[in-house]
Amino acid sequence: MSWTEKNNQLSKTFEFEDFTEAFAFMTRVAFLAEKAEHHPDWSNVYNKVEIKLTTHDADNTVTEKDRKLAKEIDAIKA
Amino acid sequence: MSWTEKNNQLSKTFEFEDFTEAFAFMTRVAFLAEKAEHHPDWSNVYNKVEIKLTTHDADNTVTEKDRKLAKEIDAIKA
Amino acid sequence: MSWTEKNNQLSKTFEFEDFTEAFAFMTRVAFLAEKAEHHPDWSNVYNKVEIKLTTHDADNTVTEKDRKLAKEIDAIKA
Amino acid sequence: MSWTEKNNQLSKTFEFEDFTEAFAFMTRVAFLAEKAEHHPDWSNVYNKVEIKLTTHDADNTVTEKDRKLAKEIDAIKA
Repeated sequence: MSWTEKNNQLSKTFEFEDFTEAFAFMTRVAFLAEKAEHHPDWSNVYNKVEIKLTTHDADNTVTEKDRKLAKEIDAIKA
Repeated sequence: MSWTEKNNQLSKTFEFEDFTEAFAFMTRVAFLAEKAEHHPDWSNVYNKVEIKLTTHDADNTVTEKDRKLAKEIDAIKA
Repeated sequence: MSWTEKNNQLSKTFEFEDFTEAFAFMTRVAFLAEKAEHHPDWSNVYNKVEIKLTTHDADNTVTEKDRKLAKEIDAIKA
Repeated sequence: MSWTEKNNQLSKTFEFEDFTEAFAFMTRVAFLAEKAEHHPDWSNVYNKVEIKLTTHDADNTVTEKDRKLAKEIDAIKA
């Protein structure tokens, strides 16, 4: 499944076996985000993680920074 | 600051110095949630963490389970 | 690979692609340990995680608690 | 308490209230390490975290990289 681009953001929902698997994934995304100094707007309920990416410094539009982070996040889950 | 009860959920927003401090807090909340087998609906953007608590098994109303987890979360941040 | 029982402890070394994958695994082990209230003696260097299990309350011998946690840890990595 | 320099490494032991507080600290150290691409040799038992820093690329001697990371780790705990 690919990311959806709408309202100037990329979004995607990831689903896991349970909460701890979801949170371990979030931990890996957190490392990527912190390294890129580009942080997601994200939420979690039990085994679901919804990630939204936009670039605040570019008037909240989708930029190359978002596409790069999206690709790196997909690589974790793969 | 206390939790807000509205629309059958308890909610509260926590603010931190930066993303890594926010995520470390989330890790501690995650331990509490997993131990209680009661998981929040929560979101994060950079240094802010918004937590919403409701009990799905009780027709999505606020129960003692939510109040207990809310208290435990407050104890972390204190 | 199975766990080694020696000197009254179960031990096993896990290897990952990189540090963030290793740390995400540690996060999942941490959830299991906290839930069981049975915590490992463990160490990490980059992509390697060495876990040692023993039961302090049982004069530091290997007990059923250790075998159960070992099995749960293996289930994550599988 | 300061770091001990011995056998070509900086080491320090941190103590916390319990396991979850210790692991939350480890999560923050992990972010620093990953960002600096300089990873510790560290271990944990319940509420104690022992961190050892050395620079593998410099024949396992203590370098400026280790001193910088040590300072950043101290800043978390402060």
